Amino acid sequence: MRRIAFDAMGSDHAPAYELDAVAAVLREGRKDIGIILVGDEAKIGEGLGRRGVKSRSDHLTIRHASQVIRMDDPAAAAVKNKKDSSMRVCFDLVKSGQADAVVSAGHSGAMLACALLLWKRLPGVVRPGIIGTFPTLQGECVLCDVGANVEVTPQVLAQFGVLGAVYSRLMHGKLRPRVGLLSNGEEESKGTELTRGAHEILKQTGAPAGFEYRGYVEGRDIFGGDLDVVATDGFTGNVVLKTAEGAAQAVVELLRAAFASSRRATVGGLLAGPALRKVKKKLDYAETGGAPLLGIDGLALVCHGRSSAQALRNAVLTATRLLDKGLVHKVAEAIEKARPKPDEKNADTGHR
Amino acid sequence: MRRIAFDAMGSDHAPAYELDAVAAVLREGRKDIGIILVGDEAKIGEGLGRRGVKSRSDHLTIRHASQVIRMDDPAAAAVKNKKDSSMRVCFDLVKSGQADAVVSAGHSGAMLACALLLWKRLPGVVRPGIIGTFPTLQGECVLCDVGANVEVTPQVLAQFGVLGAVYSRLMHGKLRPRVGLLSNGEEESKGTELTRGAHEILKQTGAPAGFEYRGYVEGRDIFGGDLDVVATDGFTGNVVLKTAEGAAQAVVELLRAAFASSRRATVGGLLAGPALRKVKKKLDYAETGGAPLLGIDGLALVCHGRSSAQALRNAVLTATRLLDKGLVHKVAEAIEKARPKPDEKNADTGHR
Repeated sequence: MRRIAFDAMGSDHAPAYELDAVAAVLREGRKDIGIILVGDEAKIGEGLGRRGVKSRSDHLTIRHASQVIRMDDPAAAAVKNKKDSSMRVCFDLVKSGQADAVVSAGHSGAMLACALLLWKRLPGVVRPGIIGTFPTLQGECVLCDVGANVEVTPQVLAQFGVLGAVYSRLMHGKLRPRVGLLSNGEEESKGTELTRGAHEILKQTGAPAGFEYRGYVEGRDIFGGDLDVVATDGFTGNVVLKTAEGAAQAVVELLRAAFASSRRATVGGLLAGPALRKVKKKLDYAETGGAPLLGIDGLALVCHGRSSAQALRNAVLTATRLLDKGLVHKVAEAIEKARPKPDEKNADTGHR
Repeated sequence: MRRIAFDAMGSDHAPAYELDAVAAVLREGRKDIGIILVGDEAKIGEGLGRRGVKSRSDHLTIRHASQVIRMDDPAAAAVKNKKDSSMRVCFDLVKSGQADAVVSAGHSGAMLACALLLWKRLPGVVRPGIIGTFPTLQGECVLCDVGANVEVTPQVLAQFGVLGAVYSRLMHGKLRPRVGLLSNGEEESKGTELTRGAHEILKQTGAPAGFEYRGYVEGRDIFGGDLDVVATDGFTGNVVLKTAEGAAQAVVELLRAAFASSRRATVGGLLAGPALRKVKKKLDYAETGGAPLLGIDGLALVCHGRSSAQALRNAVLTATRLLDKGLVHKVAEAIEKARPKPDEKNADTGHR
């Protein structure tokens, strides 16, 4: 059984949406999932009661935690000081072998801090990255990092390409993922000192790590279907994620207004309704179920603070799926393959 | 008469779209616009002939330029070495008083380099910024910088807020623009060293420069209608511009597929067609007519390399409108107001 430590206090609507999500997972009667709900025991118990869910069963236990890490807490300090916070307890449960993965919709920076403080980084990993998944016309494109690390080195940025490629291969079946490096233009003369450094490293690591490095790409290329992975720093990645979300929402709102603008358009909208709702759902980033934190020796899924209950349910199911697929082990293997060989390393640093 | 130096060789479809744009402007019979087409004289003459436009008239002249700055040219070197490039000649024409503004769809970095090399920066301006305009549900939001400066200091980033505010006031009638600083979260603990520095400066400069500083904002806030201006560095701004463009296009494509997915949806799409086309047009960034480069002592409009003829026509008209409104003078005034007073400066640096 896959045991998921689920932070009950993480989302903007905690614990209500978390409890709705748990109720939904339990209703499906999956024998392979066990949930450990972590947070305010009284609130959780009462909330479960109102949903007609037993607080304790073969597939559900509650672990009390007296504290909560808030969105405006400084990440590292909160993790150190709030030892009994629901998020930190989740990571402790995995550390002590009582759970297999963490799912939380809380402070993503604090999740990174928990992972770094309580778990180990995989050998060769400088900084873990968070995976974001974008719908494209042909399928999905993975962006790494979407918020864990706002200030990085070229080495770290290049490694985000490796992390994204592993995820794309495992989750989207891309045997040789096409990886781009996000920049402000496709020409080599574009970019910053940071991207130029990462570009040189990615030229070397792509082939041994089993992906095709495509060089600099632009924001619009994320959606074009010609790329499986885009590497970027956590600041830019977070801005991209939220810009895409905002732009897609704005389009949907503009369409709503357009359909209301004339009787003819209204009738058109009603007829096309079911097809349009499918598009809306595909575009709703809050519906996608959790973004894994890669590069650490353990599985943690970061969910959007504004996640719906449905999205949180999806995240729990995604966590079990990623455990089944051995994601963490696969990441460790890829990082190892992408490491410069001793000879190359010497050549690079001039110590031959 | 407003004399526009128009780079005939700038866009991806140069000079065809540029010549279409000129033909369109001339057809409107505006007495207040004079265009100086700069580029390969033979090609321009032949192209105009095919469009039934006289090469020389009261409102059109051609200025030959033997070179072209290409998208893969390193900006600064190209401007220095290609002295007879169509873009550089445009800036020279303004410098020598033969034209009042420049419009080009060429290399935006090279345009910045031209402006810095041949024109003067306005007093107090550290680095000029390019303005991008985004459609929102309530109107427009201005982003500055969208590509001129990829590596900036906190002072430069804060000044982009001032530049954006002037533009918003002048072009969108916002008397007291609401200005946000783009970050990876709204909390003060978020951001980078760069954004934290700019944040402290903007807290001080907002009131004297006549805008309301709203602090950190996220990518999605650009589209929400609660902001008139968002300040960011040129790397992130360029990524945002292209991500929004890509996301909006992807939504339009997904809708196209949705309308084709069933007979019912197709009929709906036909009925709603006119309303939907209006939305599509609003979202098409290639349709917006040029982004001004602000902070320099002269008016230059940067157009998208993929601009349509219609967009280039719009840019020429926008340039005359901005000349009429005295944009450059207004920017100079605002920069002056946002400068720290001698007293404050002493207080800040501890030299009182």
